Amino acid sequence: MEKAHETMPEAERKFNMGEKNRPSFSSDYMEGTHPRILQRLAETNLVQSAGYGADEFSESAREKIRAACHAPEADVFFLVGGTQTNAVMIDAFLASYQGVAAADSGHISVHEAGAIEFGGHKVLTLPNHEGKISAEDLEKLLKDFREDESHEHMVMPGMVYISQPTEFGTLYSLEELKKISAVCRAEQIPLYLDGARLAYALSCPENDVTLPDLAAACDAFYIGGTKCGALFGEAVVIPEHNRIPHLFTMIKQHGALLAKGRIAGLQFDTLFTGDLYDRIGSTAIEAADRIRRALEEKGYTFAFRSPTNQIFILLEKTKAQALAEKVELGFWENADDAHVVMRIATSWATRPEDVDYLIECL
Amino acid sequence: MEKAHETMPEAERKFNMGEKNRPSFSSDYMEGTHPRILQRLAETNLVQSAGYGADEFSESAREKIRAACHAPEADVFFLVGGTQTNAVMIDAFLASYQGVAAADSGHISVHEAGAIEFGGHKVLTLPNHEGKISAEDLEKLLKDFREDESHEHMVMPGMVYISQPTEFGTLYSLEELKKISAVCRAEQIPLYLDGARLAYALSCPENDVTLPDLAAACDAFYIGGTKCGALFGEAVVIPEHNRIPHLFTMIKQHGALLAKGRIAGLQFDTLFTGDLYDRIGSTAIEAADRIRRALEEKGYTFAFRSPTNQIFILLEKTKAQALAEKVELGFWENADDAHVVMRIATSWATRPEDVDYLIECL
Amino acid sequence: MEKAHETMPEAERKFNMGEKNRPSFSSDYMEGTHPRILQRLAETNLVQSAGYGADEFSESAREKIRAACHAPEADVFFLVGGTQTNAVMIDAFLASYQGVAAADSGHISVHEAGAIEFGGHKVLTLPNHEGKISAEDLEKLLKDFREDESHEHMVMPGMVYISQPTEFGTLYSLEELKKISAVCRAEQIPLYLDGARLAYALSCPENDVTLPDLAAACDAFYIGGTKCGALFGEAVVIPEHNRIPHLFTMIKQHGALLAKGRIAGLQFDTLFTGDLYDRIGSTAIEAADRIRRALEEKGYTFAFRSPTNQIFILLEKTKAQALAEKVELGFWENADDAHVVMRIATSWATRPEDVDYLIECL
Amino acid sequence: MEKAHETMPEAERKFNMGEKNRPSFSSDYMEGTHPRILQRLAETNLVQSAGYGADEFSESAREKIRAACHAPEADVFFLVGGTQTNAVMIDAFLASYQGVAAADSGHISVHEAGAIEFGGHKVLTLPNHEGKISAEDLEKLLKDFREDESHEHMVMPGMVYISQPTEFGTLYSLEELKKISAVCRAEQIPLYLDGARLAYALSCPENDVTLPDLAAACDAFYIGGTKCGALFGEAVVIPEHNRIPHLFTMIKQHGALLAKGRIAGLQFDTLFTGDLYDRIGSTAIEAADRIRRALEEKGYTFAFRSPTNQIFILLEKTKAQALAEKVELGFWENADDAHVVMRIATSWATRPEDVDYLIECL
Repeated sequence: MEKAHETMPEAERKFNMGEKNRPSFSSDYMEGTHPRILQRLAETNLVQSAGYGADEFSESAREKIRAACHAPEADVFFLVGGTQTNAVMIDAFLASYQGVAAADSGHISVHEAGAIEFGGHKVLTLPNHEGKISAEDLEKLLKDFREDESHEHMVMPGMVYISQPTEFGTLYSLEELKKISAVCRAEQIPLYLDGARLAYALSCPENDVTLPDLAAACDAFYIGGTKCGALFGEAVVIPEHNRIPHLFTMIKQHGALLAKGRIAGLQFDTLFTGDLYDRIGSTAIEAADRIRRALEEKGYTFAFRSPTNQIFILLEKTKAQALAEKVELGFWENADDAHVVMRIATSWATRPEDVDYLIECL
Repeated sequence: MEKAHETMPEAERKFNMGEKNRPSFSSDYMEGTHPRILQRLAETNLVQSAGYGADEFSESAREKIRAACHAPEADVFFLVGGTQTNAVMIDAFLASYQGVAAADSGHISVHEAGAIEFGGHKVLTLPNHEGKISAEDLEKLLKDFREDESHEHMVMPGMVYISQPTEFGTLYSLEELKKISAVCRAEQIPLYLDGARLAYALSCPENDVTLPDLAAACDAFYIGGTKCGALFGEAVVIPEHNRIPHLFTMIKQHGALLAKGRIAGLQFDTLFTGDLYDRIGSTAIEAADRIRRALEEKGYTFAFRSPTNQIFILLEKTKAQALAEKVELGFWENADDAHVVMRIATSWATRPEDVDYLIECL
Repeated sequence: MEKAHETMPEAERKFNMGEKNRPSFSSDYMEGTHPRILQRLAETNLVQSAGYGADEFSESAREKIRAACHAPEADVFFLVGGTQTNAVMIDAFLASYQGVAAADSGHISVHEAGAIEFGGHKVLTLPNHEGKISAEDLEKLLKDFREDESHEHMVMPGMVYISQPTEFGTLYSLEELKKISAVCRAEQIPLYLDGARLAYALSCPENDVTLPDLAAACDAFYIGGTKCGALFGEAVVIPEHNRIPHLFTMIKQHGALLAKGRIAGLQFDTLFTGDLYDRIGSTAIEAADRIRRALEEKGYTFAFRSPTNQIFILLEKTKAQALAEKVELGFWENADDAHVVMRIATSWATRPEDVDYLIECL
Repeated sequence: MEKAHETMPEAERKFNMGEKNRPSFSSDYMEGTHPRILQRLAETNLVQSAGYGADEFSESAREKIRAACHAPEADVFFLVGGTQTNAVMIDAFLASYQGVAAADSGHISVHEAGAIEFGGHKVLTLPNHEGKISAEDLEKLLKDFREDESHEHMVMPGMVYISQPTEFGTLYSLEELKKISAVCRAEQIPLYLDGARLAYALSCPENDVTLPDLAAACDAFYIGGTKCGALFGEAVVIPEHNRIPHLFTMIKQHGALLAKGRIAGLQFDTLFTGDLYDRIGSTAIEAADRIRRALEEKGYTFAFRSPTNQIFILLEKTKAQALAEKVELGFWENADDAHVVMRIATSWATRPEDVDYLIECL
């Protein structure tokens, strides 16, 4: 199978290392965009098209995404980034007096600078199990709320937020997802899924959740572009048409409407032409799998197990410092005074020779 | 002088008309991006760089913008779109109990879907004079507020918003700008300028306001990219360093922080390399000037006079319909039952042959 | 007919003038509360009752208000003040992307310190005609919005706010109210009426709008207590039961829920026992009518005609200063360099001898 | 020492039990107000005074509170209720990108229906120790934030919220308070204290924190009225004059400004005349102490120890049901399938004979 990096013209490769003397595995958004996207941008550059997403490229992308999700009636919107998408969608789903239930490790709970609260909504946290919430915990939260005599003085859980893969790189199984979805349906609250790194879930051998599964289980989800090979962009999929009236205006109100919506649309049109989105994911997963095997062989300790493109290892600080001179990893957190958790992230752009080099350094 | 369109490879031109049978002058964001930007994106695509604006391209762009503005200490941030930029900056400047004074025709007053109010702030409107506010009206607003016995029950004007060029394509003269700035300085409230189409002001022969003038007069302003040749992006310039502490976090909170900040940074680095930003503006102005002269010669009525890349003409509806079959203009507003105001916008991508064709159609 | 002031024990009257050497007509909330309310507070003081409005006094008040409004299914909530009530109800009716249409002279437009914007909503202003909006202007606003090609980029008018009497003391006729209501019903947007001084409308000879008329025309309105004889309190009437689900929680969220809801409930129970609310209004109107006649006889100029408890006169500044030494009037606005508009307000507590004295001073 | 209930005229007592056949200990805001307050309201009822807190009663109350707090420069504002006061003050202290640190059991974290988030701010929760936060946990939160490499993507802790007594009826010792205050001062973030039930802390034998201690330790705190004998009202004390410019307007913006500010002011003037506020507290504490002793003697299990006017006991559900037929207690939470935690609250209005009766029922 062709790898994404094999499609990169040799002329571009030389820039890869730049002035730096070490490759980086610190995150999956360190390069520009998949070359096919650049190519399509160039090809279509001077076509005149309507603004704000009413262009032919966006419409084509919508059709391809609907087909991929087996959701022929779906509304599809293209936004710029993940925090923005979460803020818009959560604001769109919730009534003013409702909050969103999420893992205490969820991106909206920790790393969005209060974007959800800026829209007036509380994040109601559930304990995370390696980044995931459980249907049981969710059910208990909803039941406790309902049965609390003071619940009219409290923030009503009005929707559920989960991520696939999670912020810890872990995956909901289809069974887990269906159970959470069943709780949401029983309680008549929407389920929303953050797919910032969805390509790396979809291409993961351990994964059994497909795009049609997501469309069946969720009231909305987004297919990540920024961290999956696009210059930027996230594609929101709302399987039921007109589930959220006036979402266009809400997107504008949040400052999230692109004048040149075509630029986002064209990127998703490219990602969903052929199997590009899958290939982008599998390039990263194959690289991560090689690194995981090497780590195991060399006796490294995993902070927790994750099957996708993010690997979290526990290192002595001295070891981490020694490694840092040769290759850039991502800092995750201090484990204790002597140990640190570091993240290794691969992407669509990870080159085999850099993986070789990393393994050599370990 | 080399025109922007002359740098477009012939291979791309063929896309210009696409399936459509008529060129469009309806707005200035109908094409992709200036070819130089595409070229730079391709050249740098596989360089690995830090996220969130801490990359070398953004830093280079900041330095070039500081130099162009004669503002060596300026903080420069790259955001995605105009409404977003306005919402962030107005929220950043205002205390919770303050509002922003703006022309009743200002973009924030009319066409941002309540983005300013979403952030909790009132837009305090001033009458517009062909899109502009006057220093006298502003001074009166501030004085009336101060002298109103009930002013503690009212929204305090906490900053001033103006656009250059205005939403009507008109320009503040340097004298007008200085007078407004003097009122703001005397009242100790910030002046913020929306430069969504700033290239078309800077390149206009009638204009006498330079980037250094803006940096001297304003507490912040933004240099528009989306409507001036970029794929997207607006560059906020805050001449005084650290004038707004924690703006980075506020940008994140508004969902306006780009993970791949480099993509915005690189575009502005390109626009401010050589005289590209100026050339983009002058291409559009020259085309608009040709069209204006033709309109005058043919006896058309201007809804109001604008010297930049937007032309507003009053047409009989039957005439407008006839024209629409040959060339796409932008609808502006109904003037009365029989007349309509239409907008003709040129851009960096307007081709001389399309201008010829438009003039022929008139 | 018995006047409110006649029920005041002589022992309390002595406090009326306090240390001051002049009576005040500057507003209608300068005294405590109607003595009957004090009496009921004392009688019921040690009864134990449930909090947050679930008490017997509030329930009794609700029943009396439903009866007075011929709205047997109405939901009735008791809040503390007018700005608070407006902020809660407008937030409750509007979707996040909608705004409220109101006169540019409306209380929410001018004198609520941005409370509506704090909740995220824009006030869409209509020209006022002596404080009133016209059905025609409203219809035009809604039509212009609908027909504007950019309306998805604009704030959608989602409800209408009017006041009875208006901030200028003027009254909507039943015909005017019905026309506005008909526009709202046709457009399916709620009509909300601010009745901060409703007692003074209901008791006014010129008025032809009854409480049942309000219940028939409006989706919600409030019956003012603070300015009509209560210590504080406004009674929100929503004729259709459960029109706004979870309003209780929204009230709490706005910090507007009284722990001792009984204190508000008991006051409205008292105001709607017998004809007390009417008598409170008529006491003020009779006093205002006497003052209006005297002003006419003495040749004073009215800034505009108002038939309720507020009178607005145009005075030379020197004359206003001379008057101010003898009696306190309310400052309204500067008319020009030499003239000022002053407000004379009467209330349930206005004493005939003070009216005599005022007339003498004129 | 004279007890509050002894000042109640016999004529009023008969209302105490109303139609109900059992006294209630379910909360401390079940009666109207201390009779002295009713008396002062009656005495001053017809005095004319300025609105919005600019009256002589409010000014007198401010002076008495400043004296009681040994804070001669303090700004003092009178608001209506606790949630409202918390929402206003937290909004006033925080920058838009900051959040408030509080115990996970704090009123703002759980029982204010999202009022803090409505204002755009996140509540950053700390573990509670019987309702209290520890200086160590707070210091860790602030240090972890500062040291987190992603802290610019997170909500900055911008102030600290604590309650005295806590929601669990427990007390911070002076040493504990000073330690928390020292952390806040070192980090330059304000400390704000919710004193909804402050009277019951100040009068508690175990308490060693005085009003002057609060004024020395806190940047602002409020002295509770609603739950401590007033009809309503909370007095915000800000020891440093003009610490929060334009707070008046922010109060208005939140819908929290009383037109008849005198009604709140007069109540606090009364509470701080002589030792009334103390006596109100001690009446409740003495009653609670008698009940606590009886519970101990009879072998009841306390859910946790609290020395103030709230007692939390663990009961078998069958026992709780049997008790409920004779006396009303407050439901707190289900402990497990067979047990429940009930709250017994005393107040300024608790009568000795009802305490006798309760003890008999136990």
